Amino acid sequence: MFFMISAGILGASGYSGAELMRILAARQDVRVAAVVAGSAAGRKVHEVYPGFEGVLDLVFQSIGDAPLDECDVVFSALPSGESMGILPRLSSRVGRIIDLSGDFRLPSGDLYARYYKQQHAAPDMLGNVVYGLPEIFADRIATASFVANPGCYPTSAILPLYPLLKEGAINPQELVINSCSGVSGAGRSASVELGFCEVNENIKAYKIGTHQHIPEIQHILDTTTGRRASFTFVPHLVPLARGIYTTLYARLSPSLDQETCLNILRQYYESAPFVRVKSSIPQIKDVVHTNFCDIGCMVDEHTHCLVLVSVIDNLVKGAAGQAVQNMNIMFGLHEEEGFVIRKEAAHVL
Amino acid sequence: MFFMISAGILGASGYSGAELMRILAARQDVRVAAVVAGSAAGRKVHEVYPGFEGVLDLVFQSIGDAPLDECDVVFSALPSGESMGILPRLSSRVGRIIDLSGDFRLPSGDLYARYYKQQHAAPDMLGNVVYGLPEIFADRIATASFVANPGCYPTSAILPLYPLLKEGAINPQELVINSCSGVSGAGRSASVELGFCEVNENIKAYKIGTHQHIPEIQHILDTTTGRRASFTFVPHLVPLARGIYTTLYARLSPSLDQETCLNILRQYYESAPFVRVKSSIPQIKDVVHTNFCDIGCMVDEHTHCLVLVSVIDNLVKGAAGQAVQNMNIMFGLHEEEGFVIRKEAAHVL
Amino acid sequence: MFFMISAGILGASGYSGAELMRILAARQDVRVAAVVAGSAAGRKVHEVYPGFEGVLDLVFQSIGDAPLDECDVVFSALPSGESMGILPRLSSRVGRIIDLSGDFRLPSGDLYARYYKQQHAAPDMLGNVVYGLPEIFADRIATASFVANPGCYPTSAILPLYPLLKEGAINPQELVINSCSGVSGAGRSASVELGFCEVNENIKAYKIGTHQHIPEIQHILDTTTGRRASFTFVPHLVPLARGIYTTLYARLSPSLDQETCLNILRQYYESAPFVRVKSSIPQIKDVVHTNFCDIGCMVDEHTHCLVLVSVIDNLVKGAAGQAVQNMNIMFGLHEEEGFVIRKEAAHVL
Amino acid sequence: MFFMISAGILGASGYSGAELMRILAARQDVRVAAVVAGSAAGRKVHEVYPGFEGVLDLVFQSIGDAPLDECDVVFSALPSGESMGILPRLSSRVGRIIDLSGDFRLPSGDLYARYYKQQHAAPDMLGNVVYGLPEIFADRIATASFVANPGCYPTSAILPLYPLLKEGAINPQELVINSCSGVSGAGRSASVELGFCEVNENIKAYKIGTHQHIPEIQHILDTTTGRRASFTFVPHLVPLARGIYTTLYARLSPSLDQETCLNILRQYYESAPFVRVKSSIPQIKDVVHTNFCDIGCMVDEHTHCLVLVSVIDNLVKGAAGQAVQNMNIMFGLHEEEGFVIRKEAAHVL
Repeated sequence: MFFMISAGILGASGYSGAELMRILAARQDVRVAAVVAGSAAGRKVHEVYPGFEGVLDLVFQSIGDAPLDECDVVFSALPSGESMGILPRLSSRVGRIIDLSGDFRLPSGDLYARYYKQQHAAPDMLGNVVYGLPEIFADRIATASFVANPGCYPTSAILPLYPLLKEGAINPQELVINSCSGVSGAGRSASVELGFCEVNENIKAYKIGTHQHIPEIQHILDTTTGRRASFTFVPHLVPLARGIYTTLYARLSPSLDQETCLNILRQYYESAPFVRVKSSIPQIKDVVHTNFCDIGCMVDEHTHCLVLVSVIDNLVKGAAGQAVQNMNIMFGLHEEEGFVIRKEAAHVL
Repeated sequence: MFFMISAGILGASGYSGAELMRILAARQDVRVAAVVAGSAAGRKVHEVYPGFEGVLDLVFQSIGDAPLDECDVVFSALPSGESMGILPRLSSRVGRIIDLSGDFRLPSGDLYARYYKQQHAAPDMLGNVVYGLPEIFADRIATASFVANPGCYPTSAILPLYPLLKEGAINPQELVINSCSGVSGAGRSASVELGFCEVNENIKAYKIGTHQHIPEIQHILDTTTGRRASFTFVPHLVPLARGIYTTLYARLSPSLDQETCLNILRQYYESAPFVRVKSSIPQIKDVVHTNFCDIGCMVDEHTHCLVLVSVIDNLVKGAAGQAVQNMNIMFGLHEEEGFVIRKEAAHVL
Repeated sequence: MFFMISAGILGASGYSGAELMRILAARQDVRVAAVVAGSAAGRKVHEVYPGFEGVLDLVFQSIGDAPLDECDVVFSALPSGESMGILPRLSSRVGRIIDLSGDFRLPSGDLYARYYKQQHAAPDMLGNVVYGLPEIFADRIATASFVANPGCYPTSAILPLYPLLKEGAINPQELVINSCSGVSGAGRSASVELGFCEVNENIKAYKIGTHQHIPEIQHILDTTTGRRASFTFVPHLVPLARGIYTTLYARLSPSLDQETCLNILRQYYESAPFVRVKSSIPQIKDVVHTNFCDIGCMVDEHTHCLVLVSVIDNLVKGAAGQAVQNMNIMFGLHEEEGFVIRKEAAHVL
Repeated sequence: MFFMISAGILGASGYSGAELMRILAARQDVRVAAVVAGSAAGRKVHEVYPGFEGVLDLVFQSIGDAPLDECDVVFSALPSGESMGILPRLSSRVGRIIDLSGDFRLPSGDLYARYYKQQHAAPDMLGNVVYGLPEIFADRIATASFVANPGCYPTSAILPLYPLLKEGAINPQELVINSCSGVSGAGRSASVELGFCEVNENIKAYKIGTHQHIPEIQHILDTTTGRRASFTFVPHLVPLARGIYTTLYARLSPSLDQETCLNILRQYYESAPFVRVKSSIPQIKDVVHTNFCDIGCMVDEHTHCLVLVSVIDNLVKGAAGQAVQNMNIMFGLHEEEGFVIRKEAAHVL
């Protein structure tokens, strides 16, 4: 018998929330039962996003008015710091929760307080949340009731590094993670710094050594490989609406070459529908508006340094798309359900 | 019984051709049987467009090698001037042809020669081709074997003007059509003028009074309304990859107001799935990557001038999407088949 | 004997204010004596604009602390609505004032109230302010103590229209003024609408028939030509940091052609150092970062409509540059003093 | 007595050539005596770059027609591979030559052949050319007759690294040089890859481990510090017209911290007018259209890795501006002559 998933979205008026609406609304097997956005409550979705006119006929609600109890799954696209105040209570009322914020990705409240500059509201929950990176944790996600959806930078950094670290192909010490992010990664808020005139024709590194995604990357690399990793992570704001370009530098084990590394990656992601290991250098436009993560690698002959490149759309594989991928796994569906990847092409322009 | 349409694409390696591949490849009821691109013959599609890797497994062919005889429909995304050399011969071998070039849109070889600066190769055919603007000519398209897909500018200009001219709401004289087009409208060719450094942070009008889309707009407005129209059309190149923004100025009949105009437009397009008549001012981002044409209108109180705005994605509603919409009609399918418009949202970012 | 002009800038931390600092700081004959910015008071200029580091060593002050009495001239780059609360009092203390806001450009408080949506604070002053468009009003500017610097859109619209209207070459009725503006025209404020993700790859018309620059254009065209003009003005926000592209449509007098129009324009602007009448179609990149207004014109043969194109940098000729040009005239200097136009090229990229 | 420098420019119609024209034309003490561009010979400069109209009244010439013998200095902005065929002969006729191509920057013909994929036309000259990085080699430049102007990437990489390597503050092994370049760095040529539709909303790494600037960086780091350096260099193409953003990663000596590094940099560049050592993180917009190189540094506390950031305008400090800086030194002028840096601000937008 056909099963219809009823889904709710908190923080639905932001960019990740809108992307969730876009992906879920196209599905026949999902009903978007509630779109919650305090700041937009009472307004139709297409009044905030006119592209939805005649397409998605929903009204933003306040959280008190939304029929969340009827939902099989609730996605939270609330900002970090807000999710943790709401989801703990909600978790007793809703069977499955997928949190896109950073509130439940770290292993301890202390670490959270240090990097997110505030006390965690529910530190006891932190040990019980499953980290929703499907290519690595699909088994645990399948049975989870609460999933912390990974950050965009960590997704782009962990996917290329993980198989190579696990196989011992690269040295886990002194890794360099150089990332460039499009502006939508900063969310949809009024800001001089994110204005067109400031961002266009400009690049700027930020939060060097202090970005809140550092402990998330650290924790996953450490616990999953069982070896303490050390890395320097520098994020940059670049003039793109969407997309993350991550260039990683690692010391390659002496006897290995590019082909070995490609094979390790290909083998590990053989059955992963959203990871494409490429023999050429990835570019952002190949993954924009898709749930793909494209990975490439090259060995610098002068230094035997392995250069890894990974690209994602920060709003899809880095947020909403990965959240839906997690939902699919949690409900026993094909991982790629609702994404057109077998026949349809990625956007070419 | 399920019928599978077998489709061929000429000029498949350009932007419109790639967009056709993207739209058609996602469909269960269409098989892309041949992608023809002389300059890329022998190369895999994903070697030219890496976004297709693992998604669309086809090889570009030369026209001689392609199994066009097996195709139920052939789309030509060849440049103007090339289509007319190939399609006349092909029309005896293939049941249905949809030409995206400008070669078969004008009523006479003389007009063609004047605006396209070359002699037409098959002037006798020009009277027998159906102009593929489905919102106006669906009946003729349904039985056509050869359809000339409209130009991007004409699509954006005719759709808002046609119902108002037909109803006599606006004066057909001294219309102004001011259009801004994204760069993909110029095709995918090596050019200094279309380089990033030339286009970015720049705007430039071009071909004032001489653009080859002028006689196309003229012909359709004249023949369909039965009144001679006069208009000034100025196209501009703007720093967008996709999209056309057309702002039209017309003298409104004395007793009419904005609401009357909106109602005329709404009534005319009531059953048109891809035209959205909006009460707010349209913007390009609402239609990018979709087959929608959004139309808005305002009356300037000082002058009683009617300002119409229409926006399309030049590669979708202005080219490949409209071509597929025509194919749907020619094959007796729902017009919106293969486009996700009932539930899925347009792209919001 | 060498005379050093002492200049103060109100609203110095916005984009027009910063552009004033940039232009004035390079001059040997001007001393920037005070940069006033309430929101940035106490901060060094290069803390807000790091590009000034090691170059311009000034500190933003509150208006109460700034030595405005010592200034020979004060520029106000305050927002419309704020200037009128401050400048009337200041005019008794400072010999010359140049206001870049819209507060003193209209002839009456009623008109101001209607378009600026607030009561004017000093309506009695409105008749005594000189409109600072040097190419037309240089004589009055030369002896003025209070100059209202024109709006960016009016500058781009009036300069091409004025000589042709004056000579009777075009019909003053049913003019169309279609303008596209870069985002800096909206100022430097926190805003979702001006964010990179909203503006990039987008175009949107706004304030159709209601923009506050309409009465300014109307007043100048009417009073200077002595004939009532009627026009429809539609501004558009486009993805540029700087620049205005204005395309104008006018009915050309029957016997005239393009060459006649060019000659009228060339003759009128023969001694205007900042207006270039061009035989080709102007583009924005030719004037960005300069005080030039480039003007071109074409006649549409089908309709005998004259298409005029004008381009300016909205922050230079549309704001700060024109203000300095006015200052030069008010102090009896060469109009082009401080601008490198004889030998230096405009920016080419 | 006033001395007027007569200058010629080869390859004047490209972006670097145009930037040379812009900088030189503004000077009172320089006369641009010849602008050579084979492909544009016979055309006025403003026909190719309309921004120069009414400003720079010169005609492009073929090299045979140009009065190069009269020039005190000739700049070559020809592409790599072309300069070496012309400059050796010219060096006997012209007193001073500054070559902006890569043809004379490497120490040997073998190295040149390996990275530039062609035999060098004048390998014997390679040992006698002075490398024109003024902040390091001013003494040798002052007496040179032939200067090889550094590449844009090497300029951005060497300036931050050199003082720290020289002082032994960082380990010369396993450096990472991650660079993002605007599109003008690739020159002004017809190309699909550099088209707006390909570059906009995209990032792509290229020539990993094989870029022709690698041996240039290697040679300078090695010879000037006397220690063999090893580094991995990855250039990226990003959607900017101008600018290079280089992020460098180095192992910091155990006892050192950020303040020590800043002090080393500040001390080394104390009298360098074009290098600004900043306490905040540099951004591209602060240096665009200027000859500045802004340098910042941060220590990652987790790894004791030193992160250096440097930004330049690739066409100014990375090409034409640095070439004029070299000319100034070669003619005994102030290094900053012709650049407005004491009082004028950098562009803020």
